[in-house]
Amino acid sequence: METFFPLSHPSPGLLFTPMHKNTATPVAVLGASGYVGRELVELLDAHPDVAIAFATSQSEPEVLGHRTVPMEAVEERWRDVEMVFSCLPHGVSAPVVERAREAGARVVDLSADLRLSDRAVYGLTEFARPALPGASVVANPGCYPTVALLALLPFARAGVVDTSRPIIIDAASGVSGAGRSARREMLFAEVAEDFRAYGVGNTHRHLPEITGHLIPVLGPADVVFTPHLLPVRRGILSTVHLPLRQALEREDGERILSQAYEGEPCVRLVPAGVPSLRDVVHRNRVAIGVVPVRHVSRPMLTVISAIDNLVKGAAGQAVQNMNAMQRWPETRGLLC
Amino acid sequence: METFFPLSHPSPGLLFTPMHKNTATPVAVLGASGYVGRELVELLDAHPDVAIAFATSQSEPEVLGHRTVPMEAVEERWRDVEMVFSCLPHGVSAPVVERAREAGARVVDLSADLRLSDRAVYGLTEFARPALPGASVVANPGCYPTVALLALLPFARAGVVDTSRPIIIDAASGVSGAGRSARREMLFAEVAEDFRAYGVGNTHRHLPEITGHLIPVLGPADVVFTPHLLPVRRGILSTVHLPLRQALEREDGERILSQAYEGEPCVRLVPAGVPSLRDVVHRNRVAIGVVPVRHVSRPMLTVISAIDNLVKGAAGQAVQNMNAMQRWPETRGLLC
Amino acid sequence: METFFPLSHPSPGLLFTPMHKNTATPVAVLGASGYVGRELVELLDAHPDVAIAFATSQSEPEVLGHRTVPMEAVEERWRDVEMVFSCLPHGVSAPVVERAREAGARVVDLSADLRLSDRAVYGLTEFARPALPGASVVANPGCYPTVALLALLPFARAGVVDTSRPIIIDAASGVSGAGRSARREMLFAEVAEDFRAYGVGNTHRHLPEITGHLIPVLGPADVVFTPHLLPVRRGILSTVHLPLRQALEREDGERILSQAYEGEPCVRLVPAGVPSLRDVVHRNRVAIGVVPVRHVSRPMLTVISAIDNLVKGAAGQAVQNMNAMQRWPETRGLLC
Amino acid sequence: METFFPLSHPSPGLLFTPMHKNTATPVAVLGASGYVGRELVELLDAHPDVAIAFATSQSEPEVLGHRTVPMEAVEERWRDVEMVFSCLPHGVSAPVVERAREAGARVVDLSADLRLSDRAVYGLTEFARPALPGASVVANPGCYPTVALLALLPFARAGVVDTSRPIIIDAASGVSGAGRSARREMLFAEVAEDFRAYGVGNTHRHLPEITGHLIPVLGPADVVFTPHLLPVRRGILSTVHLPLRQALEREDGERILSQAYEGEPCVRLVPAGVPSLRDVVHRNRVAIGVVPVRHVSRPMLTVISAIDNLVKGAAGQAVQNMNAMQRWPETRGLLC
Repeated sequence: METFFPLSHPSPGLLFTPMHKNTATPVAVLGASGYVGRELVELLDAHPDVAIAFATSQSEPEVLGHRTVPMEAVEERWRDVEMVFSCLPHGVSAPVVERAREAGARVVDLSADLRLSDRAVYGLTEFARPALPGASVVANPGCYPTVALLALLPFARAGVVDTSRPIIIDAASGVSGAGRSARREMLFAEVAEDFRAYGVGNTHRHLPEITGHLIPVLGPADVVFTPHLLPVRRGILSTVHLPLRQALEREDGERILSQAYEGEPCVRLVPAGVPSLRDVVHRNRVAIGVVPVRHVSRPMLTVISAIDNLVKGAAGQAVQNMNAMQRWPETRGLLC
Repeated sequence: METFFPLSHPSPGLLFTPMHKNTATPVAVLGASGYVGRELVELLDAHPDVAIAFATSQSEPEVLGHRTVPMEAVEERWRDVEMVFSCLPHGVSAPVVERAREAGARVVDLSADLRLSDRAVYGLTEFARPALPGASVVANPGCYPTVALLALLPFARAGVVDTSRPIIIDAASGVSGAGRSARREMLFAEVAEDFRAYGVGNTHRHLPEITGHLIPVLGPADVVFTPHLLPVRRGILSTVHLPLRQALEREDGERILSQAYEGEPCVRLVPAGVPSLRDVVHRNRVAIGVVPVRHVSRPMLTVISAIDNLVKGAAGQAVQNMNAMQRWPETRGLLC
Repeated sequence: METFFPLSHPSPGLLFTPMHKNTATPVAVLGASGYVGRELVELLDAHPDVAIAFATSQSEPEVLGHRTVPMEAVEERWRDVEMVFSCLPHGVSAPVVERAREAGARVVDLSADLRLSDRAVYGLTEFARPALPGASVVANPGCYPTVALLALLPFARAGVVDTSRPIIIDAASGVSGAGRSARREMLFAEVAEDFRAYGVGNTHRHLPEITGHLIPVLGPADVVFTPHLLPVRRGILSTVHLPLRQALEREDGERILSQAYEGEPCVRLVPAGVPSLRDVVHRNRVAIGVVPVRHVSRPMLTVISAIDNLVKGAAGQAVQNMNAMQRWPETRGLLC
Repeated sequence: METFFPLSHPSPGLLFTPMHKNTATPVAVLGASGYVGRELVELLDAHPDVAIAFATSQSEPEVLGHRTVPMEAVEERWRDVEMVFSCLPHGVSAPVVERAREAGARVVDLSADLRLSDRAVYGLTEFARPALPGASVVANPGCYPTVALLALLPFARAGVVDTSRPIIIDAASGVSGAGRSARREMLFAEVAEDFRAYGVGNTHRHLPEITGHLIPVLGPADVVFTPHLLPVRRGILSTVHLPLRQALEREDGERILSQAYEGEPCVRLVPAGVPSLRDVVHRNRVAIGVVPVRHVSRPMLTVISAIDNLVKGAAGQAVQNMNAMQRWPETRGLLC
């Protein structure tokens, strides 16, 4: 019988018994006590090739068995680690990432600070792979951009999208995407049995991240992105309505996805179907399905994709990026 | 202390103590044991001007204190009632409605059978009002068409919609919309913590109901309707993306709604906001908000509307229609 | 179309359209913005004989359409009202109640401050009725004591309990019992799919309230009270295991309840069954069922009772008490 | 990109990519399509030392990628496997288990048929270990008996229980314990926001299983067991109230547990606390905490324990038992 770490709804499958690791690469996790930080600590503890040298938290003295250090103490510890994962708040993260980089660490930044910056590789792994082994700083994508871009980019690249009509992205996320801070509107009594949109009218900060990485591939187009809050703990489902230059049957759409993602270990096609949250939670996976739209005068395709916002939408993709940066097998320590 | 009727998640506010009614109009409820049927029985029991003369159910001997009769026994009882509400399954309902009408009863048909038929008035109350007092049969709208058409029709009438681009309707419903039959995919263990689309690609049977009542007002246009299943018991939220002929600010959109719905007791505008399910459940109300879309080259408006699928989306609107048919105050027996 | 008050999961059945009241008794609600305070405002707005003269809130400028005043401003307003409801925090409430009383108002105190005090009538309505018309201050019972005492007191009075063996009360409450303050452990992501005990080992502050009102009737006995937190918004279920002096069949137990609660409008016996939350939410009702325990050597009875913690467990019972204080019909403005 | 198996809320961490296994022991799963059967298939697929030779299902042609065979076809396949897991219904299982045993297979029977029988070892692993390597048939314990007995047996063995007063076990389970059959009362719309007791009065079939394995250790005593249905998918929490011969402090209770479970990999003590569902879901673990009861005249201890009903309460313990039967490390293929 062992002592016990109280967990906050862990991803249990991902938490192996801490193992003795002979030649583990030392890493740091900054901002470890939020939902993303905790998910990342669990994944890294379970990863066979890394060991967490230190973790930071402003609010909690211990995270999943790791005593945390305050941010003030990290500056002299950069040299203890080979890689740094920053889950610090947007705005706070970028200067810390820069100092870690200057001190010689390689960084995966899970904040939004560098996702539209030349100073980092945008780590949508399936599309960033060639640049990752040489990257010193990787900007880990946001959860909504991950689920939307993985659905959109294959069709953008294939040149089948009619950009004269708008691309509509309606997406819904579980509450862990809103973070672990105590806020009245995230109380159980407020969220249960409710459903709502937010950031309506293209005002969510993930819109420029989506268009910033889509338009260079697609060309100019109107994109409308509307997130919604779901009464579930984790998972994002994205429903994309895509105007087409010419009609595609389901098989055509699936072929475009198959060609784009051939051999990809973390991408699942849902043949003749559409994914739901249950297909992806607790996994570093995106599941995608396509359906042609009937009863319209000009061709359209609906593309539905789903991820776990904390895994492929955050901590899991961060580990996937680390694996690629280190030239390790990309799914090491991950369940896809 | 009174005896006790076991209830299945009642709408408690709607269930008053059965009252003694002096001059109550006798009504019948066919198919009373489903979620819609039960909601209707609760509403009618609480209505000051009607009394349930009989209710039918194939599966349950009693519904909320009313002993039910089998469908076989109803033919000789039409003359006992002035109004009949049919919650019978689609396909089964129409011939029964016809026989009730021939026997002299006025009918509100909650099935889909007559919603696109000349033989009935389409009972979207706010737009059907002039025809209701003289109607012998009213086809009560479906839940998705109600929430979508109430958002769309004011803009269609105002002539502001650009029909060269598609109108996108993404909507999500609680599980009571799927009925009370025992089905594995509706078990708690399957639905909780999940979210999924269904009827993708314009294959849901509510699409023709929506377009059948929208296109005559709007003119030809592509409409894409995609329903989703929410892990909540009741409520529907609809997110409509509307291409515009020319830009409208929020105030412009709100003015179009205000003018369309002036004096309407069951329509609520959410000024400078958007509704969520909590704003409408257990009420015979639609709540609507509008937001102009930023960062697009051609103008668009997002219109979000919410109803309780069992109330304004079914049983409540049926009562509202009865009130209008009887020239009673339209909100009698309803909470809006 | 009317303007719109954003609601936080209202008890919709209880919120009638604010009505014009000719001779309404003026009342005040102190601490109106919590879950109990809001429920109370809804009930009072719907009550035909009272009008809210003012409401206070430290955190919100408006509650359900009532502009609030800060506590600092109330001292000179006591004379504007005939009755005061205090939903102030425990410890804060008692001195305010005293000042209101001194200024001539009658008070229902929903805090715990006076529940074991000679300075107030303990307002478990069904047992306090004779003292209510003359009371100047009524201490409204806690939610757990209400659900437990209503199950226990009839058997204590009947003299059937064997006090040499312990009485076990295991109860579970929805999250609204924990209040509306933002606390991390009450976030949706923490509570959903979880279940836990708290206040284990007779450390919850409701234990002395239960025993303080039970032991004088029952005589000395060991009572063990263990609350649990349920992932639902409202409702409390209490499971009481009662050692008996001699065996009772179900009918015997039901007879004891029937005799204790004859004519009680807010008490429901569940004959040959046990209640669940769905039987009571949104109503000012307790539902009770009894089952004799098989396969034990000495007789025992299990008594299960359920209430809505915000209604019969708080705001509804407060209104019931006001009605009794004012010699109005006890269920006026309430759904039982 | 791989093809996709639609899953029904899988335990994702337990589902590794099917692996190539060199010297895998062949096993069979009978009744693979229920919640327990599916959990077991996931665990066995992930287990490094076994391979599923065949699975049966009456209702589904495929379970998680395994084509199923009907029960009629299994008789000639016993010799293909070394071990058989039966998730067949109670009453159906025993004769099939007998035939499998006669054909030379070793069996873990997850039905209730043999749990009180001399023909099988009762597989509460932590207490059955010496008998497991030589067992030909192991009766896997029920979920409630597992969580209750693991809390009770250490204290029964230690001789500290006062059997003159009753032992109260109040427990609550998630809905997956009720199986995957379509039943109206298990629909999401019925279970969400509800909570209820069932099997009240010692009528649940798990009571004799609990007492049958407790009383021989404890001596004669009154035991009252009351299960409740929780609106969560998985997990059981048991709250046991234990009369004591003499007072025990928390440390005394924890010492009794520590001594009973020293070295146990699947038992976690929660020092100075009590467990909740989140601490155990998706793991083959029981978590236990103890709290002495204050304010009673004769000493009592509350012992709270939690398991995942599908893992330690069913499929996980079955794998743990198989490991012990095969003399493999007991946690192989399991997350504890």
